[in-house]
Amino acid sequence: MIHSFKNDYSEMAHPNILNALAAVGNKQFEGYGLDEHSATAALLIQKKIKAPYSDIHFIAGGTHANLVLISSALRPHEAVIAAKSGHIYMHEAGAIEATGHKICIRDGQNGKLTVADIESVLDEHNGDEHMVKPKLVYLSLSTECGTVYTRAELGAITYFCRKNSLYLYIDGARLGNAVNSSACDMKYSDIASLADAFFIGGTKNGALFGEAIVICNEELQNDFRFLLKQRGGMLAKTAAIGVQFKELFSGDLYDKLAKHSNTMAMKLAKGIAGLGYEFLYPVETNLIIPIFPDEIAEKLHELYAFYDFQKFDDKTAVRLLTSWATSESIVERFVADLAALS
Amino acid sequence: MIHSFKNDYSEMAHPNILNALAAVGNKQFEGYGLDEHSATAALLIQKKIKAPYSDIHFIAGGTHANLVLISSALRPHEAVIAAKSGHIYMHEAGAIEATGHKICIRDGQNGKLTVADIESVLDEHNGDEHMVKPKLVYLSLSTECGTVYTRAELGAITYFCRKNSLYLYIDGARLGNAVNSSACDMKYSDIASLADAFFIGGTKNGALFGEAIVICNEELQNDFRFLLKQRGGMLAKTAAIGVQFKELFSGDLYDKLAKHSNTMAMKLAKGIAGLGYEFLYPVETNLIIPIFPDEIAEKLHELYAFYDFQKFDDKTAVRLLTSWATSESIVERFVADLAALS
Amino acid sequence: MIHSFKNDYSEMAHPNILNALAAVGNKQFEGYGLDEHSATAALLIQKKIKAPYSDIHFIAGGTHANLVLISSALRPHEAVIAAKSGHIYMHEAGAIEATGHKICIRDGQNGKLTVADIESVLDEHNGDEHMVKPKLVYLSLSTECGTVYTRAELGAITYFCRKNSLYLYIDGARLGNAVNSSACDMKYSDIASLADAFFIGGTKNGALFGEAIVICNEELQNDFRFLLKQRGGMLAKTAAIGVQFKELFSGDLYDKLAKHSNTMAMKLAKGIAGLGYEFLYPVETNLIIPIFPDEIAEKLHELYAFYDFQKFDDKTAVRLLTSWATSESIVERFVADLAALS
Amino acid sequence: MIHSFKNDYSEMAHPNILNALAAVGNKQFEGYGLDEHSATAALLIQKKIKAPYSDIHFIAGGTHANLVLISSALRPHEAVIAAKSGHIYMHEAGAIEATGHKICIRDGQNGKLTVADIESVLDEHNGDEHMVKPKLVYLSLSTECGTVYTRAELGAITYFCRKNSLYLYIDGARLGNAVNSSACDMKYSDIASLADAFFIGGTKNGALFGEAIVICNEELQNDFRFLLKQRGGMLAKTAAIGVQFKELFSGDLYDKLAKHSNTMAMKLAKGIAGLGYEFLYPVETNLIIPIFPDEIAEKLHELYAFYDFQKFDDKTAVRLLTSWATSESIVERFVADLAALS
Repeated sequence: MIHSFKNDYSEMAHPNILNALAAVGNKQFEGYGLDEHSATAALLIQKKIKAPYSDIHFIAGGTHANLVLISSALRPHEAVIAAKSGHIYMHEAGAIEATGHKICIRDGQNGKLTVADIESVLDEHNGDEHMVKPKLVYLSLSTECGTVYTRAELGAITYFCRKNSLYLYIDGARLGNAVNSSACDMKYSDIASLADAFFIGGTKNGALFGEAIVICNEELQNDFRFLLKQRGGMLAKTAAIGVQFKELFSGDLYDKLAKHSNTMAMKLAKGIAGLGYEFLYPVETNLIIPIFPDEIAEKLHELYAFYDFQKFDDKTAVRLLTSWATSESIVERFVADLAALS
Repeated sequence: MIHSFKNDYSEMAHPNILNALAAVGNKQFEGYGLDEHSATAALLIQKKIKAPYSDIHFIAGGTHANLVLISSALRPHEAVIAAKSGHIYMHEAGAIEATGHKICIRDGQNGKLTVADIESVLDEHNGDEHMVKPKLVYLSLSTECGTVYTRAELGAITYFCRKNSLYLYIDGARLGNAVNSSACDMKYSDIASLADAFFIGGTKNGALFGEAIVICNEELQNDFRFLLKQRGGMLAKTAAIGVQFKELFSGDLYDKLAKHSNTMAMKLAKGIAGLGYEFLYPVETNLIIPIFPDEIAEKLHELYAFYDFQKFDDKTAVRLLTSWATSESIVERFVADLAALS
Repeated sequence: MIHSFKNDYSEMAHPNILNALAAVGNKQFEGYGLDEHSATAALLIQKKIKAPYSDIHFIAGGTHANLVLISSALRPHEAVIAAKSGHIYMHEAGAIEATGHKICIRDGQNGKLTVADIESVLDEHNGDEHMVKPKLVYLSLSTECGTVYTRAELGAITYFCRKNSLYLYIDGARLGNAVNSSACDMKYSDIASLADAFFIGGTKNGALFGEAIVICNEELQNDFRFLLKQRGGMLAKTAAIGVQFKELFSGDLYDKLAKHSNTMAMKLAKGIAGLGYEFLYPVETNLIIPIFPDEIAEKLHELYAFYDFQKFDDKTAVRLLTSWATSESIVERFVADLAALS
Repeated sequence: MIHSFKNDYSEMAHPNILNALAAVGNKQFEGYGLDEHSATAALLIQKKIKAPYSDIHFIAGGTHANLVLISSALRPHEAVIAAKSGHIYMHEAGAIEATGHKICIRDGQNGKLTVADIESVLDEHNGDEHMVKPKLVYLSLSTECGTVYTRAELGAITYFCRKNSLYLYIDGARLGNAVNSSACDMKYSDIASLADAFFIGGTKNGALFGEAIVICNEELQNDFRFLLKQRGGMLAKTAAIGVQFKELFSGDLYDKLAKHSNTMAMKLAKGIAGLGYEFLYPVETNLIIPIFPDEIAEKLHELYAFYDFQKFDDKTAVRLLTSWATSESIVERFVADLAALS
């Protein structure tokens, strides 16, 4: 089988994760996230993000995390503000709308929402009761374009949101890649202090499955477990996610894995750039989008699996993802193959 | 920690399951259930249930399976018929109603819905457009009372449903315990031929997590993956569930584990009955509900963890569950402790 | 056509209503309830109910009023407590569930919910996050059985609700009949001080169409017009409802019409009782349910239109409604016809 | 009070409408649209639109008509395609999303959706189960920009929809203005043969309130009354709408009123154009959008009530609507006032 750069969840799980699960043996635990593994994992996360009063909930997947959190936070007429490239708008099969809420979109820049974007949504709606009431800003960190927000950018958004009674929610499916990006000057504690809620992605960073929802704003904490249950997100064996996050956050495994995939992407980008190719967006994390002439892209498709991202006249921007499991040798081979084709 | 008879998902996973996951190593797979592990698991299940044209979908949990399937099958005004003891009615936090559908309830008998129950719901509604339109019958096998349907009972329900254009959906969180019960004269293939859809529970029978939704009726198959995605149920690493079901169904592991928990429950029940205690419902699977004088129940609570099920004047019916991991010695100890208290 | 005692909305509208609408002529007004007719009507209602800080919203129908108010008041996991005979549970086609909320039912007495009923729902749920969270008590005044609550009964419910953080919402489709019943010792101002929200029915009391939603509890007032619009309930010509309520409440028309239908029902009941027949529930408003031998009921069906309410062995309880337009002569004729059949 | 050109529902109702309602007197009728007035009105409409097998349902308002029809037609993952200017996208407070469905938007031209727009939505989605499945095309006739589709334009859309299994639904809040526009070469029967469903607006064309939903496609007819009830749209006194539509369609009143408002708008537009002003969109119905220098627009606001539609550098496009009740003299006065200001 040819190697896939399609995504960062093509490999099962880091061995430590499976070992940690196996180490539990037949030791019994409480159901539905009330177990000691989940409790320990939550404490480790709270410590890492320096938010001892945050609420931590474990859930199996990211789309699910988004829809449970957002539908819990909003009244029926309240809406979400997102970039058009935001995962919830295009790639979650209408999950947010299925819970009853409209998503108000703006183009954004490099996959990032700006204060001006958010402001223009508010201006357009302006409290008119014939329209929805924008109430929650959704952004992805890192973004669907592989980019990250700086502290200044995110801080400006938070400041604007608080002034305008908007919640700020961050989809952190690739939060590790963001925080460990050299383009990002934020720590986990910065995210926790700037967002009302976010999730820390496990699925895309070496876990077998699972994400950790973090609710910082007390207003959003109330009764969340009811919502988690009602939407089908409260697993009987939530402990199986708790064990994984305990493993990821008891040492530096979570960051180590994110750093590795970032490093592999940088190496890949450097090799591609060295051959004279450009990128659609700044190269900042483990998702990079080089632009190749169509014939090069076609030939690469015979050698590797990856998705086309956007079509231009005679060029194609392609999306390449590295993961915690991507080896240096496969990166080198890709660059060598590209050099041979160029 | 005292031993828990609270439920059958108190232990992580059968070692074979974890070994199977580890055996994948870093071999890449496709995302969202389009991988070869899930495909192989689906084929094995189709073979086991003798339903080669059924659709198989993997999802993390049972409440989630129920809500995705039911909301996919119904138009907005259509409703579910269920026993009052049905899991979706009382213990899923309004998950079905949250997708917009009413549940019409009847008392049932021993946790089982009868044709007369279903008929009385139809009679009450009778096509009146000021009421909902009952369209799907939900039942659990084995039930929340630990009982099973016989082939005659289920067949009668199926016959009635087909005559009245009702779908029959079975919550099979404990399907293995049902099929392997001596009180049940059905095989998996009987279930598949009698139900329009059902799910085969992994979480409560030795898997780390995961359920296999089986859609037999072609009418219900269309576009199901859209629904799965929209409700947050399509995991990026669905392969992790596929691997587990491959392990459970490539040999007889699924049945072996279910038989073990049933056997442990029968042994437990026999010991309890031997001491002169009665049961609230027929003892048929791994969930049994003996009735103890209050003072006995209270003392048992100091020695073991379990839930009270129902209160009577000076007696308490308590719910005891055994699992694939329950040892013979703990069962014997319980009986001995009970004998000492009696 | 034979006379119908089926309901109290079989006649178009009291002449004053239509005259008031015609009197507006082509004088322009603002759209969506921001007109002066609606404002004046709201002030008249606030004065009548002695609740100057209540919010008044006009909507076309009762089912719609119920679903907009309830879905506005609740978070997704919160549920309604109602009597099994409550209109929202059986006769609104699952309208509440369609907005995502479960209705927890109790049998009630004579169509009335008791504090014990409500308490038993809370006891059953008890904060368990695997179940819904009961949050709003729904009751009808007068009830679907024609009965009314006394001030003591309603006061006890309000007291219990406030102690347990439950909202109390009253379906007042027949509020005029209740307040003007000799069995009811409450004024409109009592209702307004005991309920968090209610609606005053116009459709069943002489209006062409329309109900006035009254929101007393400030917590429930916020952004209500967004909800009204979103659910399709904010008519462009809300002024047409405003004009009607102005007419109904500028003098005593609303009470006069309700009194008339009550009086006709009492006269009818007295005549029926005089012939030796009994009633299923206390006779208190314009909806009465006498019990006739089957053969009498059948013969009456040839002479008058009405609904059977409940079947007994060889008897049938039938539902008879009088309206603001019911004449004394038709009542007398019914009694005479019944006497002839008896 | 200054004259309002804000909308076409600023006056109560044409006298014939109120007379027809009054003429019913106290004659009883069946509830919930099963009355003879509604039946007669439905037959008259079926005859007018030459669609004897269509289903006709009466409902109080347009937003409500849209949400009931659309939510009835779609499965949870199915979505709507609309122009960005479409009423359901921006001015119904998220009503469609509140029923669970996403609206996929395109810019359109002059408020009209093109086949290319629809095709581009399909191309973007392309059956990908991570996105919604576009299933219903929504368009307004006349549009929110006052424009109309030609038979060729609408026919092309219908042809494309049928080829691609899309439903075509038309918001006909101003259908009379469209059909009676000289720019529109369609009759009601053309609309009925090209759309799967549409509604005929009463509120904006002289009725007191009410719209007639027409369902042509048999697939969409099933069980519609359940949906109507469930969403709160089935009025007890639907007869009150039936009487109005009987009046509007027993002769030519509906067309006469629409023609009048169109004629007044054309006269107004001609006067404005004669003074050298341009229009944002083609002038085709009773909604016109001239562009004035800001200072003229400001002075006009002192003399007349109307909405600003769009801001340009030093100009403002303003929205002017005429109605069935607009007098020739007020139109002449507006033009004279504008001339004086120019």
